[in-house]
Amino acid sequence: ALAGMLPREEAVNHIKEAIQKTYGKRGESIVAQNFDAINMALEHLQEVTVPSEVTSRIKLRPPVLPSESDFVNRVTAAIAEGRGDFLPVSAIPVDGTFPTGTTKLEKRSIAAEIPIWDSTICTDCGLCALVCPHAAIRLKVFPESALGEAPANYHSKPWKDKELSDHLVTVQVAPDDCTGCGVCVDVCPAKSKEVVRHKAINMEPKGPHLEREQENFDFFLNLPPLERTRPKIDTIKGSQLLEPLFEFSGACAGCGETPYLKLMSQLFGDRAIIGNATGCSSIYGGNLPTTPWTVNRDGCGPAWCNSLFEDNAEFGFGIRLGVDQQHEYAKYLLKQMADRVGPELAGPILEATHANEASIIEQRDRVRKLKQRVAEFSDPQARELASVADALVRRSIWIVGGDGWAYDIGFGGLDHVLASGRDVNILVLDTGVYSNTGGQASKATPRGAIAKFAANGKASRKKDLGMLAVSYGSVYVAQIAIGANPNQTLRALSEAESYPGVSLILAYSQCIAQGINMTQGMSHQKTVVQSGLWPLFRYDPRLACDGGQPFRLDSRKPTIPFTQLAQLEGRFAMAMRSNPEHATHLAALAQKDIDDQWNYYEQMAGVKREIVTNGR
Amino acid sequence: ALAGMLPREEAVNHIKEAIQKTYGKRGESIVAQNFDAINMALEHLQEVTVPSEVTSRIKLRPPVLPSESDFVNRVTAAIAEGRGDFLPVSAIPVDGTFPTGTTKLEKRSIAAEIPIWDSTICTDCGLCALVCPHAAIRLKVFPESALGEAPANYHSKPWKDKELSDHLVTVQVAPDDCTGCGVCVDVCPAKSKEVVRHKAINMEPKGPHLEREQENFDFFLNLPPLERTRPKIDTIKGSQLLEPLFEFSGACAGCGETPYLKLMSQLFGDRAIIGNATGCSSIYGGNLPTTPWTVNRDGCGPAWCNSLFEDNAEFGFGIRLGVDQQHEYAKYLLKQMADRVGPELAGPILEATHANEASIIEQRDRVRKLKQRVAEFSDPQARELASVADALVRRSIWIVGGDGWAYDIGFGGLDHVLASGRDVNILVLDTGVYSNTGGQASKATPRGAIAKFAANGKASRKKDLGMLAVSYGSVYVAQIAIGANPNQTLRALSEAESYPGVSLILAYSQCIAQGINMTQGMSHQKTVVQSGLWPLFRYDPRLACDGGQPFRLDSRKPTIPFTQLAQLEGRFAMAMRSNPEHATHLAALAQKDIDDQWNYYEQMAGVKREIVTNGR
Repeated sequence: ALAGMLPREEAVNHIKEAIQKTYGKRGESIVAQNFDAINMALEHLQEVTVPSEVTSRIKLRPPVLPSESDFVNRVTAAIAEGRGDFLPVSAIPVDGTFPTGTTKLEKRSIAAEIPIWDSTICTDCGLCALVCPHAAIRLKVFPESALGEAPANYHSKPWKDKELSDHLVTVQVAPDDCTGCGVCVDVCPAKSKEVVRHKAINMEPKGPHLEREQENFDFFLNLPPLERTRPKIDTIKGSQLLEPLFEFSGACAGCGETPYLKLMSQLFGDRAIIGNATGCSSIYGGNLPTTPWTVNRDGCGPAWCNSLFEDNAEFGFGIRLGVDQQHEYAKYLLKQMADRVGPELAGPILEATHANEASIIEQRDRVRKLKQRVAEFSDPQARELASVADALVRRSIWIVGGDGWAYDIGFGGLDHVLASGRDVNILVLDTGVYSNTGGQASKATPRGAIAKFAANGKASRKKDLGMLAVSYGSVYVAQIAIGANPNQTLRALSEAESYPGVSLILAYSQCIAQGINMTQGMSHQKTVVQSGLWPLFRYDPRLACDGGQPFRLDSRKPTIPFTQLAQLEGRFAMAMRSNPEHATHLAALAQKDIDDQWNYYEQMAGVKREIVTNGR
Repeated sequence: ALAGMLPREEAVNHIKEAIQKTYGKRGESIVAQNFDAINMALEHLQEVTVPSEVTSRIKLRPPVLPSESDFVNRVTAAIAEGRGDFLPVSAIPVDGTFPTGTTKLEKRSIAAEIPIWDSTICTDCGLCALVCPHAAIRLKVFPESALGEAPANYHSKPWKDKELSDHLVTVQVAPDDCTGCGVCVDVCPAKSKEVVRHKAINMEPKGPHLEREQENFDFFLNLPPLERTRPKIDTIKGSQLLEPLFEFSGACAGCGETPYLKLMSQLFGDRAIIGNATGCSSIYGGNLPTTPWTVNRDGCGPAWCNSLFEDNAEFGFGIRLGVDQQHEYAKYLLKQMADRVGPELAGPILEATHANEASIIEQRDRVRKLKQRVAEFSDPQARELASVADALVRRSIWIVGGDGWAYDIGFGGLDHVLASGRDVNILVLDTGVYSNTGGQASKATPRGAIAKFAANGKASRKKDLGMLAVSYGSVYVAQIAIGANPNQTLRALSEAESYPGVSLILAYSQCIAQGINMTQGMSHQKTVVQSGLWPLFRYDPRLACDGGQPFRLDSRKPTIPFTQLAQLEGRFAMAMRSNPEHATHLAALAQKDIDDQWNYYEQMAGVKREIVTNGR
């Protein structure tokens, strides 16, 4: 219309033909919406006169806020501003290490609406903070005395808990870090009795709230967190009092993967080392120059590195071997130096159990003291011990990736690690598709779903990776869905981390590639579990040692037919629109997959119980 | 003792110390045997005077017999004689293709004893031929008239079968190809009622029998074989009337792997294409310059190629895709040319079912005719069709390898092929150890077995590859042991080949690395199955389609304790001698593995039956 290279009508007809061809399969309404977009674009063309000089006084904020770190100000900021090519090679770290905790400097402020807390209705359940994909809504509990310097409009309410009954709680949004996905509001169970649809948090236009919530969030961040031993971390609300060490990633609004990583970072992040396979999680996890992985007030946080699709399980396994070697070496050196550092310090360090948060904190304190004492000596042995002393605190090794990695390209190595028996935790963020590369089918794609390389709906059933791992007998395995059963998710993460062998967690993750309403992603997980497409279970080899039942089914017999679920997901519904006969055939097979699998799982869960009933 | 570099006593003491160090773990009797060998060597030293000139008239036989093939006489023979370096590059095939059927030219004649047939006791069961690792004992059935030119001492007896009741049978040894392992005699069930230990076949010193049996074997080979449609190939004795197309390999005497390959070659070899992973089977399968894979009288036989540990499943899968593409292309061309070649020929070719041996033979005849007719035309389309016409006969694609390949290094690709749904047959020759590379532990090594990298006995349980494949639901899976249940082996091979999707066969294979008496390898398989270490089963997805039970347990509840089996195998017994406490612990876990697995399998086999009983 502007260039006039073709007659307007002819050009528009060509464009509409292309739309029909590209989107015809997705149904008439999609095509009509695209036609409307073209028509309205033409109707609303307006000429904008470009002024001859700059008159605005508004300054663009720098892409990265000033930091205490010189490196961040010099290097990170330059890359974020698109000036990375002008950096000298000498500016880049020689060992490839980048500082963590840098996404908080981006303040992208992309949300149109943000959640606003109504403390009068809130029941302190913590679900909003648990499910937030960006750690942009948080809980903190503090004594009333801490409110001394609080901003005028800072909100808080009494914390409902026996042990901290004199404390207050704030549910705080990070207004510039929120993406406005609305997942927190969707899961909020506290509803007003007076106002229809009004909950304890509600999405509202950001503008009127921004400045106040910026001020509140700054104050909130400066409130000292509870010591890690005080909250009941085996409850949802308790777990949300732990600082998230994964925040403000560049993942899609409503991402189903990131809540698992955030929860893991809250529980174990201060001593975690993560090997991350290529995929979405490697992109939002280390989107150079910033990273969402961060540190707590003591400077403790996860170490993170990305490896390849084809070797990430081996990569994480190698980290385990290295850490174990350092641990053994540090113990060896400490035994040699026990008299010099003092047996009253060396003894407890060597005998530490790391059985719970308290004992880990004690060990960390002892190691801090050890490093101080060792610093007084200058012989080679002392210097060696100083360099490996941190390895005396138990590390938590995580191997993370998506289903394309775990089910397909990295599976050979994953299987080798499953068989190894070494203490690693494998977290598979299962979207049932290669999300980051654009939606190709993986072996995790369920039967009947449309994906690239499965244009007519995937013909074969989803691979049962959980049961493959169960068949080893020595692997802790859990299949979880945080939106469907957050308590089971919390238990599974804790059990997996405490299990002194290989643990595999398969985490259901909604994704834009599935064609669902992402705002309702967490409540949709309930439907998925109720349909039987994703049964929840935990297999704990420790339970088998006492003749108990190691396999526990954590979800109920499916009640929602597959066809009902299929209507709610574009990946299935699209198949029905483009080829109803074939899709109906696949849907029948998909239902059979679900029924067969459920029978099998029930069987697995029932075996030992029967034996127990028989008095054996 | 000859060189006198050290005092004799001192040298012998050093040698004995070394023996004690190397073999001490294997027990006193092994050490004593080694000491005896040294002592007796010293006692029996004899001086041999080397004559100044050659007086013998005995000529060394060439390493490879003269052949009808010029290539074999020029190239194969030169390499076999160790003169390969003198061949010009131009002598080597440009596409790497070597002629098959060449081990029969080697006539290694390595056996000290060979099996001699007593036709008066034989019951025609065919077991001896079935289990022979080298296809060196064979059955042939023929009309009496065929005996016209028989050597004077040629033996035969009436064939006990209703349909060929007027025929005779010969059980014939190939005296120069037999390795003297004695497995055939061990399995022979027909015993003399008069003479103790005398069976229908018996090991006897080769010398007195050699010339006669050479003459008999030559006559035997020239007897025309029965047409493939005549024997009942679903019976052991019937299957052994099919020509083996895998013969006289260089595998160890008593090898547990080769009988499976030979049986496969009898059933499907005339139209098989084999992708073979690195390992024992790639060495004895293509031990340049000779190969045991051979052709029948019509020149039909397997095409065979070796690929790598890490990609052999993909390699075989690619052969499938290529063959399918050729098949479709040939059909397309034939449809185009139907009028020219004659609809009465084109029609039946295009509609062929390949449902049984008879229909495959008919199709092969039709394709032969087609090629003759097409040769009359000279246009490009006709030439194209001529080049791909053979692909109109159904091919049988086999992917073969050991457990190191299937369970470990090639598993990622194997899994991808399992999920593919394409018509390939995967045969895993499972010795529970990397046999060819010297006995390293694989994920197939059972708990408690000593192997390289598992010097104290393997700490973890054997991976259940069969159940991993079963979990796909669409894969035909069988776990077999030819010595324990030959009929089940035969059924599994036939079912796998007829299944129009992926088939996986796990074949128990005894091996010298296991430390067993290899002569009794086949009867030992019975003990292994009775111990529950290797349950027999078949999973046929076709049975599930009709609501039936796809999983069938083909062996009985274990009756032999693991500890009893362990005494019979060096790999387990050695652990007990070197570290009894640890070995006892592992043995208890191994017994638990067996019990757990059996419960699980029974459960699998029982599920549907219960449902059927409940009237659903």
